[in-house]
Amino acid sequence: MADERDSGFVKEIRKQSADFPGWYTDVVRKAQLADYSPVRGCMVIRPYGYSLWENIRDPLDGLIKETGHENWYFPALIPLSFLMKEAEHVEGFQPEFAMVTRGGGKELEEPLVLRPTSETMIASVLRDYIQSYRDLPVLTNQWNNVFRWELRTRLFLRTLEFLWQEGHTFHETAAEAEEEVVRMLEQYRRIAEEWCAVPVLAGRKSDTEKFAGAQYSMSIEGMMVDGKALQMGTSHYFGDNFTRAYDLTFTGRTNERQYPYSTSWGVSTRMVGAVVMAHGDDSGLQLPPRIAPVQVIIIPIFRSDSERVQIDTALQQVLTDLEDIRVKVDWRDERPGFKFNEWELKGVPLRIEIGPRDLAKGEVTVVRRLNRAKQNVPLGDLGVTVPAMLEEIQAALFTRAREFREAHTVRLDSLEALVKFFDTSIGFVVTPWCGRTEDERTVKDRTTATTRVILGASGPAAQPCAICGRPASVEVAWGKAY
Amino acid sequence: MADERDSGFVKEIRKQSADFPGWYTDVVRKAQLADYSPVRGCMVIRPYGYSLWENIRDPLDGLIKETGHENWYFPALIPLSFLMKEAEHVEGFQPEFAMVTRGGGKELEEPLVLRPTSETMIASVLRDYIQSYRDLPVLTNQWNNVFRWELRTRLFLRTLEFLWQEGHTFHETAAEAEEEVVRMLEQYRRIAEEWCAVPVLAGRKSDTEKFAGAQYSMSIEGMMVDGKALQMGTSHYFGDNFTRAYDLTFTGRTNERQYPYSTSWGVSTRMVGAVVMAHGDDSGLQLPPRIAPVQVIIIPIFRSDSERVQIDTALQQVLTDLEDIRVKVDWRDERPGFKFNEWELKGVPLRIEIGPRDLAKGEVTVVRRLNRAKQNVPLGDLGVTVPAMLEEIQAALFTRAREFREAHTVRLDSLEALVKFFDTSIGFVVTPWCGRTEDERTVKDRTTATTRVILGASGPAAQPCAICGRPASVEVAWGKAY
Repeated sequence: MADERDSGFVKEIRKQSADFPGWYTDVVRKAQLADYSPVRGCMVIRPYGYSLWENIRDPLDGLIKETGHENWYFPALIPLSFLMKEAEHVEGFQPEFAMVTRGGGKELEEPLVLRPTSETMIASVLRDYIQSYRDLPVLTNQWNNVFRWELRTRLFLRTLEFLWQEGHTFHETAAEAEEEVVRMLEQYRRIAEEWCAVPVLAGRKSDTEKFAGAQYSMSIEGMMVDGKALQMGTSHYFGDNFTRAYDLTFTGRTNERQYPYSTSWGVSTRMVGAVVMAHGDDSGLQLPPRIAPVQVIIIPIFRSDSERVQIDTALQQVLTDLEDIRVKVDWRDERPGFKFNEWELKGVPLRIEIGPRDLAKGEVTVVRRLNRAKQNVPLGDLGVTVPAMLEEIQAALFTRAREFREAHTVRLDSLEALVKFFDTSIGFVVTPWCGRTEDERTVKDRTTATTRVILGASGPAAQPCAICGRPASVEVAWGKAY
Repeated sequence: MADERDSGFVKEIRKQSADFPGWYTDVVRKAQLADYSPVRGCMVIRPYGYSLWENIRDPLDGLIKETGHENWYFPALIPLSFLMKEAEHVEGFQPEFAMVTRGGGKELEEPLVLRPTSETMIASVLRDYIQSYRDLPVLTNQWNNVFRWELRTRLFLRTLEFLWQEGHTFHETAAEAEEEVVRMLEQYRRIAEEWCAVPVLAGRKSDTEKFAGAQYSMSIEGMMVDGKALQMGTSHYFGDNFTRAYDLTFTGRTNERQYPYSTSWGVSTRMVGAVVMAHGDDSGLQLPPRIAPVQVIIIPIFRSDSERVQIDTALQQVLTDLEDIRVKVDWRDERPGFKFNEWELKGVPLRIEIGPRDLAKGEVTVVRRLNRAKQNVPLGDLGVTVPAMLEEIQAALFTRAREFREAHTVRLDSLEALVKFFDTSIGFVVTPWCGRTEDERTVKDRTTATTRVILGASGPAAQPCAICGRPASVEVAWGKAY
């Protein structure tokens, strides 16, 4: 039996180190998170993946509501003319429009665009609800699907249709709107770090990397196991760009007509991809306990019906003791080794093995997905030990990911050093930077890396820009990005 | 002050008795549930309406999961060819298709239809997941938006885009699938009756009224305050219609290739419309406590800052005592009478008025939205009294709606009596019926009423069909429907 428990099982997933993109697709599909659909670029999110998404979505919905936002639902179909009003926005999104041109058997007079994002619809609708400074702020959020006609797609990371939340807020002053941008980025940081256990860099994007139509954008960026950056959430400051374009005004405190300042911010099912790529290994997924659909998998090990009954009886008390934990018992008629591998592939943080010999000793074997560390735990202690182990694993995954990022982040001060780094290494390069777009072009041409986030102003004794030698104004993180 | 508390306030909603459709639209808009959007036939669901929807959606999601179903997400865009495979289904839905013909700046080779419902997509996808009888049943659900190009729309009841859940299940045997159809109808009955406090008739639809592509459909039907029927949820038995059309097969227990039996069932944001129309009155909404976004509104009544502080202090304990209740304190700078009317319009089940005179007596005035019954309650009792009152109101709303339905349901046994009833009255007419489509046409032509649900087989000493005099096989409920 011991042999069988530890026996290998070919899961047919490519090696992470040999083919990271192949490994990613295999894990997403074989762990039954999602699959490609018969429609080009669209995915089917399977129950295990959707449940993982629910475990990210629900706490995020809580954070959004706690910070005073309310959920609305706005139409998915946006008249083309609405989208054409903000010049930069059109330019950014038009190439990806999916257009409804026929409805009810007739050609439409004006095509309707499937929302790629809802700034234009929401500004158009809220014109009717915002009249006076007393109506502000308006803090909206919606959970919905959006459509972007992407040519190269990858499950969860970039698909033609995806699920997200998009918050849109309107404020009396620029200062309030800018505070909002930071406040929501902080909620995203919390979801990424405290729930998904993915440490992130949070900061402003460069002008090159900002959202089409924003005055500036901020983002959180995680480092994946291949050393590439993944943008996991964005928060945008629009100033009055959109409210001017949509003639959305209010009567201010001194009776003058003013444009509100607006923001938007979004997190999508891409977060699921981040969890896969930040924690997974050659055995498959590795899920942080707080978001794992199954936190504990129990594998009964028996050779006769009477052993089965004996285990089942003992499990009743265990299940009661673990009632606040997401536990599943795998009674399927398969070899234990098969089950071990399958639940490892699915990234379940803790496995409990329970057989007659364990029972005779009044204990079970608890195995962590993380490093496969084993430990015997008395049956009666599980109600205390298991929650503590889950907490510990949650923290350990975060620490491991942070240490990985730190080990793969270097501070460099010349273009040559940066180019050399990206030639042979993976990770983030932090440099002083003057902020010029030309420098980003230079680096991208030579390395494919881009600026991910601006980490802050450069110090008083500022070094020169690592790329061009001009005086630096900021510290920036460079990385190859998804 | 007493005068002000009771003073009238023009809410500008049309009288329910004079213009029911006008009343409905006014209530939905003025209570801030939803509004028409700038896109024809599409609505904007506002926070109060969305919160009400969440309070229906979340318990329904719980019932769906408890009965073994898992949430998936399938693409919203369905290739036209997929939809064309099941003849009846196409015929029913094609007139309402919204079609994407351009994407990424190019004409598509094949148009994509925005899902009007997902049978065709789900059957196409699940072909890959269902191989053997061991893979069955597959019990899927999804929460999503759907699109039907309706020409005449009404907020929540019929819109071009709406939100719903659609369950789709696949079974080894017809018997299991038919049990599933009934099981899910029963969950819908529970949501309608136990949460929304709307009593429903549940049963099979006639062939005329069934879903396009179903072998038969079942539904729950509520009676609105205008006596009309509203179909609030449907559950369909497809036999192997869809699995044959999509060539979805499995290997059975004796190794033969078989078609699974499938079902689908859905409940939408229409349920919000049912709540408005089943409980509302000339003052506005009347929300069942279990789903009310605000269960208790507290109106502080004060004339000075010191009174305000005194009330605020007393409220801290009240809010702690009511921490499991959805309570809101309305501190806005408006007259109490204005606030009373506004929260009545919004249908909040309980209002607590608290002023210095109340405080001096150590009590508050609690006013039920239902019949405006008032009662003084000692401050220290609120933690016990309020939850009990909410329970009692939940039950009272259901009883009132059931009594209304019973008072507006008659049993008749001739076409003439039925025609005369619908000429002058509103409500349901129950008759023996032979089941012929011709009879439905006759009744519809003369009254606009249709069969709503079949209540059961007619008794052993069956009367003749009320419409045509042939032997009756069933009892059926007729009504004018939304």
